[in-house]
Amino acid sequence: MHNKYLVTDEWKIIEDLWRPELNQGSESIFSIGNGFMGQRANFEEDYSGQSLQGSYLGGVYFPDKTRVGWWKNGYPEYFAKVLNSVNWIGLKIEIDGINLDLAKATVSHFYRELNMQEGHLTRRFRAEIAPGKIVEVDAQRFVSMTRKEIGAIRYSFKLIQFNASVKITPYLDFDVINHDSNYEEKFWESVSENVATQKAVIEAKTRKLDFHVAAAMRYELYRGSAPITLYPEISKKDKYADNSFTVTCEANENYSLYKYAAICSSFHYDKKDLQQKADELASIARRDGFDKLLAEQKADWAQRWQQSDIAITGDAEAQQGIRFNIFHLTQTYTGEDARLNIGPKGFTGEKYGGSTYWDTEAYCLPFYMASAGKEVARNLLIYRYNHLEKAIENAAKLGFSNGAALYPMVTMNGEECHNEWEITFEEIHRNGAIAFGIFNYIRYFDDKNYLAEYGLEVLIGIARFWAQRFTYSEAKGQYVMLGVTGPNEYENNVNNNWYTSYIARWCIQYAAESFETVKSLNPSALERILAKASFKAEEELAQWAKISSNVFLPADEKLGIVLQQEGYLDKEQILAADLAISERPINQHWSWDRILRSCFIKQADVLQGFYFFEDDFSKEELERNFDFYEPRTVHESSLSPCVHVVQAAYLDKLDKAYEMYLRTSRLDLDDYNREVHEGLHITSMAGTWLAVVEGFGGMRVRDGKLYFNPKLPKTWKTLSFKINFRNAVLKVDLSPTKHHIEKLSGDAVEVIVHGESISL
Amino acid sequence: MHNKYLVTDEWKIIEDLWRPELNQGSESIFSIGNGFMGQRANFEEDYSGQSLQGSYLGGVYFPDKTRVGWWKNGYPEYFAKVLNSVNWIGLKIEIDGINLDLAKATVSHFYRELNMQEGHLTRRFRAEIAPGKIVEVDAQRFVSMTRKEIGAIRYSFKLIQFNASVKITPYLDFDVINHDSNYEEKFWESVSENVATQKAVIEAKTRKLDFHVAAAMRYELYRGSAPITLYPEISKKDKYADNSFTVTCEANENYSLYKYAAICSSFHYDKKDLQQKADELASIARRDGFDKLLAEQKADWAQRWQQSDIAITGDAEAQQGIRFNIFHLTQTYTGEDARLNIGPKGFTGEKYGGSTYWDTEAYCLPFYMASAGKEVARNLLIYRYNHLEKAIENAAKLGFSNGAALYPMVTMNGEECHNEWEITFEEIHRNGAIAFGIFNYIRYFDDKNYLAEYGLEVLIGIARFWAQRFTYSEAKGQYVMLGVTGPNEYENNVNNNWYTSYIARWCIQYAAESFETVKSLNPSALERILAKASFKAEEELAQWAKISSNVFLPADEKLGIVLQQEGYLDKEQILAADLAISERPINQHWSWDRILRSCFIKQADVLQGFYFFEDDFSKEELERNFDFYEPRTVHESSLSPCVHVVQAAYLDKLDKAYEMYLRTSRLDLDDYNREVHEGLHITSMAGTWLAVVEGFGGMRVRDGKLYFNPKLPKTWKTLSFKINFRNAVLKVDLSPTKHHIEKLSGDAVEVIVHGESISL
Repeated sequence: MHNKYLVTDEWKIIEDLWRPELNQGSESIFSIGNGFMGQRANFEEDYSGQSLQGSYLGGVYFPDKTRVGWWKNGYPEYFAKVLNSVNWIGLKIEIDGINLDLAKATVSHFYRELNMQEGHLTRRFRAEIAPGKIVEVDAQRFVSMTRKEIGAIRYSFKLIQFNASVKITPYLDFDVINHDSNYEEKFWESVSENVATQKAVIEAKTRKLDFHVAAAMRYELYRGSAPITLYPEISKKDKYADNSFTVTCEANENYSLYKYAAICSSFHYDKKDLQQKADELASIARRDGFDKLLAEQKADWAQRWQQSDIAITGDAEAQQGIRFNIFHLTQTYTGEDARLNIGPKGFTGEKYGGSTYWDTEAYCLPFYMASAGKEVARNLLIYRYNHLEKAIENAAKLGFSNGAALYPMVTMNGEECHNEWEITFEEIHRNGAIAFGIFNYIRYFDDKNYLAEYGLEVLIGIARFWAQRFTYSEAKGQYVMLGVTGPNEYENNVNNNWYTSYIARWCIQYAAESFETVKSLNPSALERILAKASFKAEEELAQWAKISSNVFLPADEKLGIVLQQEGYLDKEQILAADLAISERPINQHWSWDRILRSCFIKQADVLQGFYFFEDDFSKEELERNFDFYEPRTVHESSLSPCVHVVQAAYLDKLDKAYEMYLRTSRLDLDDYNREVHEGLHITSMAGTWLAVVEGFGGMRVRDGKLYFNPKLPKTWKTLSFKINFRNAVLKVDLSPTKHHIEKLSGDAVEVIVHGESISL
Repeated sequence: MHNKYLVTDEWKIIEDLWRPELNQGSESIFSIGNGFMGQRANFEEDYSGQSLQGSYLGGVYFPDKTRVGWWKNGYPEYFAKVLNSVNWIGLKIEIDGINLDLAKATVSHFYRELNMQEGHLTRRFRAEIAPGKIVEVDAQRFVSMTRKEIGAIRYSFKLIQFNASVKITPYLDFDVINHDSNYEEKFWESVSENVATQKAVIEAKTRKLDFHVAAAMRYELYRGSAPITLYPEISKKDKYADNSFTVTCEANENYSLYKYAAICSSFHYDKKDLQQKADELASIARRDGFDKLLAEQKADWAQRWQQSDIAITGDAEAQQGIRFNIFHLTQTYTGEDARLNIGPKGFTGEKYGGSTYWDTEAYCLPFYMASAGKEVARNLLIYRYNHLEKAIENAAKLGFSNGAALYPMVTMNGEECHNEWEITFEEIHRNGAIAFGIFNYIRYFDDKNYLAEYGLEVLIGIARFWAQRFTYSEAKGQYVMLGVTGPNEYENNVNNNWYTSYIARWCIQYAAESFETVKSLNPSALERILAKASFKAEEELAQWAKISSNVFLPADEKLGIVLQQEGYLDKEQILAADLAISERPINQHWSWDRILRSCFIKQADVLQGFYFFEDDFSKEELERNFDFYEPRTVHESSLSPCVHVVQAAYLDKLDKAYEMYLRTSRLDLDDYNREVHEGLHITSMAGTWLAVVEGFGGMRVRDGKLYFNPKLPKTWKTLSFKINFRNAVLKVDLSPTKHHIEKLSGDAVEVIVHGESISL
């Protein structure tokens, strides 16, 4: 089913043949970014073939008016679109009047390489643009990890056995489109275009939200190592500026154009300073030069890998897969700005509005905690703290009161962007993951102060929501949760989804417990929080206790399992293995109602609860539920396999674990879902990390101690990774027969491997 | 809440003051039609104020590409839009160069009258178009009931105390828009425009489906009773043609322009004949003249009222209301063409795609049976028979097999047009109403042959669908119905909706029973049907019996009621009376999920079942269910009150019955829902008829006999109506103290009034 065309390499992603039909997918896979901006692997020169042009800036989005068939009360007004931004890579190349365009040339020696170790993209090819006229190109570029506004390009070319007049036009262009625009409108408007010899700075603003962005460029041309003096024509139009110049190029001589772009947005700078700042940064980049910038880039990535690498020997594809995932996670989110987050497609595509799903807390947080450390992880939490007010407004819009907070299903700035009622209004378990993220972070870093500073306020809002969202059923004499969609989105509007009710109850209990924690830790902080939230402690805590002690949780005594939802056993009980291949994935072959009526599960639902709350259950309970639910799971979400890897490994079902692992680790590289052309599945990459570290590594945190219970797949000779834990950095080396854990820096840590305690 | 501005009159709808803000609503209310086409009460002359231009042709529609937020498998590709067609009424009037436009003039003496008895529309006004220049207009028009393609206009005017040069431009125009177009495209394209002196014929075709329509016009101008010879300029452009001429008009003299239009569509004629046919019909209409056409119209309506009138004395508003409803039902559907049906807005607006909902069988059929007779009612059934193949395709698309038929939620040509999954895929009880329509028709007319000719095939398809749609629950040991939306659309995707399961079971039983009926009545027809449907009689009937004898129907023993759906009693049990006025209607004030979680009921759901299957239950059972469910019903569908009137009257709750009656009878006239500007609620008008005849009249059919159990509202002195029953026409006169039932024509009928049998 999948599409394997890339060369396997430990540190690189390599494409070594020109396959135009795969180009748009490669544009996603070879994307580069720096946490602040990103760029798909589009070509610098013109390309008239199939392509998704994409240049994205963190935090800069467009609120596209909602498009639905039938409006329902409570729907959000807009869907936040990841905004395609300025084309800063553009270089038009005309050789003897013929435009260089790989869609119109005969291409050979094509080679594309993403160097994950050093963080740059290279592309080489030969193009025969007319009979006998062959040009050889070697282009390299990166967006700088150290200079967040800077992108740099070296574009070298050589004419093979012929002389020609070559016209080169480096440009900046805001006249770009979003393919996913709801109403086919352009999102950018011109502010100003300034262009002079060998420099340009243009500024544009977005419609509606008035984000301003200035892009500046500098460039130079070298023949061999000698700079060429240029006398370019300058030109500009609405949202666009260029220089163009013609050089008489000699056969077989190497020419290199260096282009430096600086992109500054009003998300980070004052509007009035944007043009000057961009111009200045571009100028400095040019002064420092490509090689210096590239050296910085290599050093920066070396540092990051130092903390986050996972090394696997014995399975080169697994090695490449896990590094690919870590690389993209790292360039998507660097944690310096708490207003940014991890979009499901990162900076690699425009599908999905908004940047933040529950994926962040449920799947991504552990990776960033262990690989990027406390400050980065903390910023992910503060992101939600900053959105608390909007979450309260969102809940109010749906009829909740008294500071109840419902975090959105997907958001850019805290406002809800999703517009299917069964998701927007009902997939409310997301609120639980956000509370769980706080718990998980504190468990990991022992940072209880976070509760006093930020966490408790969020927990109160969430607990209040759940307390109102439970309904007391006279018929059952218990609190029930009506009309929800669980993590398994192949069920909608069900009553008493076990996962949702369980995490909702837990949220109420954890909020009450956190209240006590802050009370003893920092009474004055508590006073401030209670006043701010108008929290009537006695009354509300009593109500919470009353509800949380009497929640209806569906279960089947006979099978000894909990029930995904009330009535689940009324469904026809068939297994995923019973389905014909021709019907898989069912979401492409079955009508929606058939999916809903079936027992099939899209992604971990009950098992997601067992994953979060593993310690609440015995291993036997987990096994009974795993054995019941996994065979009914079709894993049609990219987020599904990872949880099952962790549990299967724990339950010693290593074949199942490895089968699931293969589905997650190379999802995009091998394009399992035939959709990589739309962008990468960034958040599920963190799931792969979970699969390796918590699954095969068996890592857990309990009572401030780090546990490992490693169980490697058969083919793996060694598995090594680094872990930030509390204030220490550990190096973990595992093999089928032995383990070695070393503290590289930091405070004392207690580690337990296979039940054996080691103090480091 | 409602908006009362019309003069109360027994036979007329009258508006006697110019209120531009209400004009668009009046355009709906004063609409005219003839079952083949219809025209909103737009002005003949230009009008730049708020208006919804609407001219509609039965059967001519546009398949507008579906617009949804998120696509789900199984969604229909398009939504059939009621298509705004040619503007045939248009007359541009310029007086001394000033365009007559009521939005730009000072208007007085405005008067609009819909003469329901005679079927025509009159409008009179004075407009001061410039200081001292007052023109008086008296315009009258109708679409002919006897000549289905013809519309005729008399447009008389008089200049008050001034002479002027008046330029008049009668025109035909296909360059019209649909306001509800999904992609803001125009649906018509030009075929040809032919124009000559005092005549024009233009033809246009629709995009995608290639419906062709030709419109022809003729006109004449009279001064007093003397025709004026005209020398018009002719003009045409894409989709448009006109004549224009200027007349020097004398003060206080009466001028009358007569315009005759003929509209022929490829729905009824060969494309190649359209222009000639339209031209010919327009020419004949002009030859016969306005007065003759009007005389025909009056005679035709007199005949129709003879059969269908309901007379109420003592309550003038109720009288006007019921006649208004009968008038619109009659001009929406005349039953001559089995390809047409009763659109929810008839010919009065463009909202809602498609023409046919389950409203037809559930609410409209009884009116047409009793008022229009057997042939008309039969054509409503044959409409569905003709769509059987599409219904089988529709079910197959959703995963059903073996000739299972799922009729669409809304359709134009048998294909599904609705695109909310919870409706399209789940509001499947509609299939039940279609089977019930067959049963109801046969009960009423004793036409068992219908089963052999058409009915059984439909019933087999429907029963097969239900047999597959039930799921055997191992947990319950019974057949359950998962994932449905009942008539109460304020619940979605529920399990075991009582109404749906009950009618599904009934369908299976009735299909099996009908199989036996045809077997004994017409064995050769049975052979043909079984072969055509590949019906394996023994096996399928056994399977049907197995299922229908073991259906799970939720009920509560303690309360002695059936349950709207499993788990309904888990909801917070509050009553509609507990809701603050400021929260009503809840569909405008509550978020969708809050509505879903609440116990509130949009329209009769359980009670719809008790309405259809009244004889299956005791009066006490009905009363317990009515007393439980009605107080939880918010009646936010126009189809809700009528069922409750029938049951409340039966249960001697006359105050409740009258309260409900008020909500249905003048819904549009008094614009209760503030949406009359979008068009009228045609199908709910049939519900009003049910309320009067079955509610206050207490009419039932049982075992071939007609029962009356009249209970009049306090203010009503008499209630009289006509009923077609079997082959007889009866006149029923009721008063609080006596009743008189007379047979006007036809076979012997047994009537039982208040339990006392009368043979007529």
